[in-house]
Amino acid sequence: MRNQRQPAAAAWAPDSLLERFRRTRNLSRDLAKGLNEADMTVQSMPDASPVKWHLAHTTWFFETFLLRDHVPGYRLFDERWPFLFNSYYEAEGERLSRPDRGLLTRPTVAEVLAYRDHVDEAMVDALPLLMERHGELVELGVQHEQQHQELLLTDLKHLFSRNPLGPAYAPVHATITHAQPARDLPLRWIAGAEGLAAIGSDGQGFAFDNELPRHPSWLTPHALANRPVTNAEWIEFIADGGYAGAALWLSDGWDWVRREGVGAPLYWRGGPASGWEQFTLSGWQKVDPLAPVTHVSFYEADAFASWAGARLPTEQEWEAAAQGRDPLGGNQLDHAAPVAPRAEDGGGVDDGGFASLFGNVWEWTGSAYRPWPGYRTAAGAVGEYNGKFMSGQFVLRGGSCATPRGHARASYRNFFHPHQRWQFTGVRLARTL
Amino acid sequence: MRNQRQPAAAAWAPDSLLERFRRTRNLSRDLAKGLNEADMTVQSMPDASPVKWHLAHTTWFFETFLLRDHVPGYRLFDERWPFLFNSYYEAEGERLSRPDRGLLTRPTVAEVLAYRDHVDEAMVDALPLLMERHGELVELGVQHEQQHQELLLTDLKHLFSRNPLGPAYAPVHATITHAQPARDLPLRWIAGAEGLAAIGSDGQGFAFDNELPRHPSWLTPHALANRPVTNAEWIEFIADGGYAGAALWLSDGWDWVRREGVGAPLYWRGGPASGWEQFTLSGWQKVDPLAPVTHVSFYEADAFASWAGARLPTEQEWEAAAQGRDPLGGNQLDHAAPVAPRAEDGGGVDDGGFASLFGNVWEWTGSAYRPWPGYRTAAGAVGEYNGKFMSGQFVLRGGSCATPRGHARASYRNFFHPHQRWQFTGVRLARTL
Amino acid sequence: MRNQRQPAAAAWAPDSLLERFRRTRNLSRDLAKGLNEADMTVQSMPDASPVKWHLAHTTWFFETFLLRDHVPGYRLFDERWPFLFNSYYEAEGERLSRPDRGLLTRPTVAEVLAYRDHVDEAMVDALPLLMERHGELVELGVQHEQQHQELLLTDLKHLFSRNPLGPAYAPVHATITHAQPARDLPLRWIAGAEGLAAIGSDGQGFAFDNELPRHPSWLTPHALANRPVTNAEWIEFIADGGYAGAALWLSDGWDWVRREGVGAPLYWRGGPASGWEQFTLSGWQKVDPLAPVTHVSFYEADAFASWAGARLPTEQEWEAAAQGRDPLGGNQLDHAAPVAPRAEDGGGVDDGGFASLFGNVWEWTGSAYRPWPGYRTAAGAVGEYNGKFMSGQFVLRGGSCATPRGHARASYRNFFHPHQRWQFTGVRLARTL
Amino acid sequence: MRNQRQPAAAAWAPDSLLERFRRTRNLSRDLAKGLNEADMTVQSMPDASPVKWHLAHTTWFFETFLLRDHVPGYRLFDERWPFLFNSYYEAEGERLSRPDRGLLTRPTVAEVLAYRDHVDEAMVDALPLLMERHGELVELGVQHEQQHQELLLTDLKHLFSRNPLGPAYAPVHATITHAQPARDLPLRWIAGAEGLAAIGSDGQGFAFDNELPRHPSWLTPHALANRPVTNAEWIEFIADGGYAGAALWLSDGWDWVRREGVGAPLYWRGGPASGWEQFTLSGWQKVDPLAPVTHVSFYEADAFASWAGARLPTEQEWEAAAQGRDPLGGNQLDHAAPVAPRAEDGGGVDDGGFASLFGNVWEWTGSAYRPWPGYRTAAGAVGEYNGKFMSGQFVLRGGSCATPRGHARASYRNFFHPHQRWQFTGVRLARTL
Repeated sequence: MRNQRQPAAAAWAPDSLLERFRRTRNLSRDLAKGLNEADMTVQSMPDASPVKWHLAHTTWFFETFLLRDHVPGYRLFDERWPFLFNSYYEAEGERLSRPDRGLLTRPTVAEVLAYRDHVDEAMVDALPLLMERHGELVELGVQHEQQHQELLLTDLKHLFSRNPLGPAYAPVHATITHAQPARDLPLRWIAGAEGLAAIGSDGQGFAFDNELPRHPSWLTPHALANRPVTNAEWIEFIADGGYAGAALWLSDGWDWVRREGVGAPLYWRGGPASGWEQFTLSGWQKVDPLAPVTHVSFYEADAFASWAGARLPTEQEWEAAAQGRDPLGGNQLDHAAPVAPRAEDGGGVDDGGFASLFGNVWEWTGSAYRPWPGYRTAAGAVGEYNGKFMSGQFVLRGGSCATPRGHARASYRNFFHPHQRWQFTGVRLARTL
Repeated sequence: MRNQRQPAAAAWAPDSLLERFRRTRNLSRDLAKGLNEADMTVQSMPDASPVKWHLAHTTWFFETFLLRDHVPGYRLFDERWPFLFNSYYEAEGERLSRPDRGLLTRPTVAEVLAYRDHVDEAMVDALPLLMERHGELVELGVQHEQQHQELLLTDLKHLFSRNPLGPAYAPVHATITHAQPARDLPLRWIAGAEGLAAIGSDGQGFAFDNELPRHPSWLTPHALANRPVTNAEWIEFIADGGYAGAALWLSDGWDWVRREGVGAPLYWRGGPASGWEQFTLSGWQKVDPLAPVTHVSFYEADAFASWAGARLPTEQEWEAAAQGRDPLGGNQLDHAAPVAPRAEDGGGVDDGGFASLFGNVWEWTGSAYRPWPGYRTAAGAVGEYNGKFMSGQFVLRGGSCATPRGHARASYRNFFHPHQRWQFTGVRLARTL
Repeated sequence: MRNQRQPAAAAWAPDSLLERFRRTRNLSRDLAKGLNEADMTVQSMPDASPVKWHLAHTTWFFETFLLRDHVPGYRLFDERWPFLFNSYYEAEGERLSRPDRGLLTRPTVAEVLAYRDHVDEAMVDALPLLMERHGELVELGVQHEQQHQELLLTDLKHLFSRNPLGPAYAPVHATITHAQPARDLPLRWIAGAEGLAAIGSDGQGFAFDNELPRHPSWLTPHALANRPVTNAEWIEFIADGGYAGAALWLSDGWDWVRREGVGAPLYWRGGPASGWEQFTLSGWQKVDPLAPVTHVSFYEADAFASWAGARLPTEQEWEAAAQGRDPLGGNQLDHAAPVAPRAEDGGGVDDGGFASLFGNVWEWTGSAYRPWPGYRTAAGAVGEYNGKFMSGQFVLRGGSCATPRGHARASYRNFFHPHQRWQFTGVRLARTL
Repeated sequence: MRNQRQPAAAAWAPDSLLERFRRTRNLSRDLAKGLNEADMTVQSMPDASPVKWHLAHTTWFFETFLLRDHVPGYRLFDERWPFLFNSYYEAEGERLSRPDRGLLTRPTVAEVLAYRDHVDEAMVDALPLLMERHGELVELGVQHEQQHQELLLTDLKHLFSRNPLGPAYAPVHATITHAQPARDLPLRWIAGAEGLAAIGSDGQGFAFDNELPRHPSWLTPHALANRPVTNAEWIEFIADGGYAGAALWLSDGWDWVRREGVGAPLYWRGGPASGWEQFTLSGWQKVDPLAPVTHVSFYEADAFASWAGARLPTEQEWEAAAQGRDPLGGNQLDHAAPVAPRAEDGGGVDDGGFASLFGNVWEWTGSAYRPWPGYRTAAGAVGEYNGKFMSGQFVLRGGSCATPRGHARASYRNFFHPHQRWQFTGVRLARTL
C-alpha cells in the first residue's frame, strides 16, 4: 500500500465510492460463481492463491485497516482468521505460510461468503463515518480488491491448466468470438516525446504510493510500436530458433530457458507441424495469430525484442505515450467472463495511432521496479503495500483483459519477477531513434 | 500386487466374496461422508493422496484388472481417467505425477461417485463369471481397497493437522471415550519360540505375494514385550533427553532429527510445562498417557528401544509370536469413525499374555523390507504391487485402529520408509535373551 | 565486453600499452606468490573461482580474442584448454560448468604459468601488429585481467575464511597499519548537481560498452554523504535491532536474512559483549570502528539507509558527483598485499569534500543494472561481456582497495546480485532534498 | 568401530602388529606419492574425501583413541586439528562439516606428513605398553587405515574422472596388462549348503563388531555363480534395453535411473556404435569384456539379476560359500598401483570352483545392512564405528582390487547406500533352487 498524499477529501464522494465499493465486492462474488468448493480451495503453485483465499483476504483487508482500526466497537468475525488471511503484512504479525494457502479446506466457501456479508454490512454502515477521515483507505481497499480480481482469474487459469482434463471456467465468451479482423494491424513506429517529461501521478484521482511523486525525467529520442506483438510474430520467432540458442537472451533468461525447458509461451502446446494451441479460461483453443501474444516472461519479451532488432520501452517512455489517452478503453474486465486477449480490429486505435495501450495484455517494460525520486512509503502496515517489493522485479504497464476497467491509468506501475508469466503479459516494442 | 499362488478356487465362494465386495465398497463411501468437496480434493503432501483420489483409484483397480481385462465388451467409464487414477503401475502406461493428485478439482466428487456406481454395477453383474477364473483378482481388489481405506483416514488426518483451525473429522467417538483403565498394563517380557520357525503365509485364505513362500527361519533366544510402548513412557524418553543427543540414534535418524527439528511424535504440541496435546481425527486432544504412542518413525522407534535397553523385534520373531492368535481382535476399523489408539484395559490380553498384537498401532520391526527366500512376483501389472518396493523400507506388523478388521493377519507385512510417521505407527520392544 | 566505439586508434600508443600489458600480467603472477598449489586450485563456492583458474582464464582471453582471432599462424597452447578456461562466452562453445572449476587439479600451476609465458611472448611479439587494428581488444584484455585481479583476491579471501584455521594471505600490511586517525571524519551532506547531467563515458580513454553512450539525465535535488558508512555506525545499526525485524527491509532482503541467518556483515564474528572481529586477508582482526563497513549486501545497504533515514544514491547522482575528480586517488590496489579498507584520515578528502569516492569500498547504488539509453552490445563473443547480465543485479560505483589503480573511473559501472557480499562492498548514503 | 570381544591378548603379538602397523602406515604414504598438493586437497563430491584428509584422519584415529586416551603425558600435535579430522564421531564433539573437507588448503601436505611422523613415533614408542591393554584398539587403527586406503583410491579416481583432461594416477600397471585369457570363464552354478549354517566371525583373528556374534542361520536351497558378472554380459544387458524400461527395476532404482539419467556403469562413456570406454586409475581405457563389471549400484545389480532370471545372493549364502576359502588370494591391493579389476584367467579358481570370491570387485548382496542377532555396540566413541549406519544400506562382500590384502575375510561386511557406485562394486548372481 502507499502514501496517497494527493487525494483531496472531496474526491471521495461517499455516494460514488459506496457504489464502487458495492460493485467491486459484487464482482468478486460473481467471478467465483460456477466454481465448486474444490476449484476455489486448491492452490496450484506457491505464486498463486486459491479463489476462496482471494475472497477472504480482500475482506480481511477491509476488516483490518478500516473496521478494526477505525470503527469503535467493531468485533472481528473470527479471531483466528487474520492469521489465515493476512498476505504479507509483517506489521500485522504472524501468518499462514504462503504455500500453505491451499490447505484451508475449512473455513468453507459458505463461511467465507458469510464473512464477506458480515464485513460488507459493517462497511456500509460505517461508510459515512469512514469517508470523513479515511476515504483514501476505503478507496485503497477497493483498488486492492480489483488487483485480486485479476489474480483470482489468472490463478484459477493456472489451476485449470494443470488439470489433464483441461476444464473451462466458462465457454468462449460471445464478446470474444466476435468476427475476426480481416487482417492484422500492420506494425508502425510512433515517435515519442523527447526531452523533459513529467512522470508519475498527476494527482487527479487515486494513485498508489509507487506512482508518486510526479517528477521530471529526460527522454532520449525513441519510438514505440503502435500495437503489441502478435502470436503470428511469436510463431515466427520460435520458427527462427528464438528459443534454440543463447545469443538473444539475457544470461539469467537463458539459464531459465534451459532449466525449465521453455520453448513457447506458457499454456502453449503443439508445434509447427500440428499447429499451436493455448490453454484459456475456455479450455484449450487454437492460437489466434492476430491476437497479442500473452503469458510470456520478461526474459522472453527481452529476447524477442533483440530478435526483432528492437528493445522494450522504458516505463517513462510508455507513460509519456499514455498520458492523455483514455485508460477506460480497450479490452478490460467488466464482468465475470472467460477473458482473453483479442485481436486488434483497428477499431480500438486511439487518436495517437496506438492500439491497446490500455487493456488486452500487460506490457513488459525494460525498467526494473525501483522507487521514483522522492518516493516515500506510508506509515504503518499499509506502508508494506508496494515499497518493499522494489528489488528483483520489472515494471509492466497498461492493464490487461483481466484488469477491472477503471483500475489502470497512465501512471500505474505493475510489477512481476522476470521469469513469471502466469499473468496476461505481453510485449510492445520500442526503438531508440 | 502379488502372486497369490495358494488360494484354491474354492476359497472364493461367490456369495461371501460378493458380500465382502459390497461391504468394502460401501465402507469407502461411508468414510467420505461429512467431508466437503475441498476436504476430499486437497493433497497435503506428496506422500498423501486426496480422499477423492482414493475413491477413484480403488475403482480404477477393479475397472482395469477385472472389467477391462476380463469382461468382454466392457467400456471404460471415461477414456481419460486411467491417466488420472493409476497410482504406480508402470506397465499401465503414463500417469499423473503423484504430487499433482491434489490438482484434480475435476472430476468432481459426484462424478467420482458415479464412477463407483458404474463400476460396482458392472462388477456385480460380472461377479459370477469372474469368480470362476479370476476370484483371486477380485479378492485382491477388495484387499487393495481396504489398504486405501486406512490411507484415506491417515491422509485426511494429515490434511486436517495442517489447518491452523484444526478441524475434526468427527467428534470423539463413543467407543473411544470409554472409561479409562484404572492403571497401565505393566510391561512384561514374554519369551518367544527358539529354533526353527515356519514363516510366511500358511496358505489358509488370502495372502499377498510378499508373504510367500512359507519357509523355515531360525530364531535365536528372545522375548517380546506384552504390550506396545505407551505415551507415558514416551514422555519419559523426551524428558530424559531422548531427542537431545546423537548417542541413541542411527546416523540417518539423527540427521533426520536435526534437519526436521523433531522433538516429539508427529501431531504432538505442547511440552512438559503446559502438557502434551496431539492432533486426532477428533481435533486436538490431551495425550492419553496409557494409550500406545503412535505416529513415530522407525528412527524414533529404534532410538527409544536403545534408550530402553532393548531393541525392535525382527519380523520373524513377531510373526512367530502372532501365529495362532486371533487377527480379528483388538482395536481395528469397523465403520466410519474418528479412530484412535486406545489405552490397554487388560481385557484385550490374549491367552499368550499379549495385548494388541493386532490392531491399535502398527509395530515397527527391525527388519528391512526384503523378499522371503524363493519370493516371486506375479506376471503382468499386478506384479508391481509389492516386489518393486523392497528397498529402503522397514516392515511393520499387526495392523492399527485404522486397519479394516479382517485385513491383517500373522503373516501380513506392511512397510514404510524409516522417516515416515503419518500412519498409526507404534513400538513393541524386544530383547535378546 | 563491449562496444568501445570511442577510443581513437591514437589512444593505444604501443609503448604505453605494452608497458601496461606487462605490468598487469606481472601483477597477476605476484598476487599468486606465496600460495601453495592447493590454495590456488580449490573453489570455495560457485560464485568464486580458483586463483589458478583466474590466471589461466585471463590468459585464454588474450589467446582467444587476440592471438587466435587475429594473429595468423598462431597455434593454441593446448587444444583442450579453451573448454576449461572459457568463463561464460556462449559463442565460444561448450565449457566447463562453473561450479566445477575447483576440480581442475590438473593442469598444474606450473603448467598454467607456462601457458602465461607462452601467450605473453606471443602477445609481445604481435603487439605492434595488433595495435594497428585491434588496440581496443588489447586494452580490453588488460582491463579484463584487472577485473580478475580483484576477484582473485576476494575469491581467495572467501576460501581462507572457510578454513577453521583462518590462514592469512599475508601479515597485516605496513601501509595498512598506519597510525589511526585521531577521530572519525564526521558525516556531512554535500548537495549534488540538479537538473540535466551528462552521464556515461566522455570518450576520454577506455570505457566498457556499458558506460556508453553518454546521454542526458535529469537529477532531482539531492545530497550525498561525504564519506562511506563506518563500522562504528554499522555496530550501532546492529545494536538497534537492524537485523531483528522486517520493517527496514526489502521483502526479498528480509527473506534472505531469515533464510541465511544473517546478523552482521560477511566475515564478522563475535558480538557486542565480546567485541567484533572480522576475517581479513591477514586473518582474523579486530573490527576497526573508523574504517568503512565492507562485505555488506545490497539488501543490508538498503536496510541501513532506511534505518538512517536516508537512501542509497542513484548511479547517476554518484557519477555526477564523481565527474572531474581524480580516479587514481584513494586506497586502491598497487601491488600484491593483504588489502583492506582503511579508516578515513581526512587526508584523502578531495576538494569537493568527498572522502573515498574512489577506492576503499565499492558503493552500492539504488540503481538496478540496466542499459543506458541507446546502449548497443559489440558484435561477436565479446558482445557477451556486459549486456547479458543486465537483469537482477545492482550497480556499484567507485572501486575498492582491491581494484587495480587506474581501472576505475567516474563512469565505471560494477554490478552484483543484491545478496552478494564477498566483494569489498560498502555504503555511501544519499538524501532527497 | 566395534566391540572386539573375541581377540585374546595373545593374538596381538607386538612384533607382528608393529610390523603391520608400519607396513600400513607406509602404504598410505606410498599411495599419495606422485600426487600434487592440489590432487590431495580437492574434494569432488560430499561422499568422497581428499587424499590429504584420509592421511590426516587415519592419524587422528591413532592419536585420539590410543595416544590421547591411553598414553599418559601425550600432547596433541595441534589442538585445532581434531575438529578438522574427526570424521563422524559425535562423542568426540563438533567437527568440520563433511562437504567442507575440500576447503582445507591448510594444513599443507607437508604439515600432515609431519603429523603422521609425530604420531607414528609416539605410537612406536608406546606400542609395547599399548599392546598389553589396548592391542585390540591398535589393531582397529590398522584395520581402519586399511579401509581408508581403499577409499583414498576410489575418491581419487572420482576426482580425476571429473577432470575433462582425464588424468591418470599412474600408467597401466604391468601386473594388470598381463596377457588376456584366451576366453571367458563360462558361468557355472555352484550349489550352496542347505539348512543350518554358522554365520559371523569364528573368533580367529580380528573382526569388526558388526561380524558378531556368530549365530545360526537357516539357508534354503540355492546356488551361486562361479564368477562375477562380466563387462561383456553387462553390454548385453544394455543392448537388451536394461536401462530403458521400469520392468526390471526396484521402484527407488527406477526413480534413480531417471533422475540421474543413468544408462551404463559409472565411468563408462561411448556406446554400442563407438565402443565403450571406462575411466580408470590409468585414465580412459577400452572396456575389457572379460573383466568383471564394476562401479554399478545396488539398483543396477538387482535389475541385472532380474534380467538374468536370477537374484543377488543373501549375505549368509555368500558367507557360507566363502567359509574355509583363502581370503588372501585374488586381485587385492599390495602396493601403490593403478588397481583395476582383472579378467578371470581360470588360474584363480579355488577348489570349490569359485573365481574371485575375494578381491577383484565387491559383490552386492541382496541383504540390507542390519545387526546380527545379539549384536552389541562397543562402549564409547568407537561404538559409533558400525552400528549407527545400520539403516538404508546394503551389504557387500569379498573385497576388491583396492582392498589391502589381509583386510577382507569370509565374515567381513562392507556396506553402502543402494545408489552409490564409486567403489569397485560388482555382481555375483545367485539362484533359488
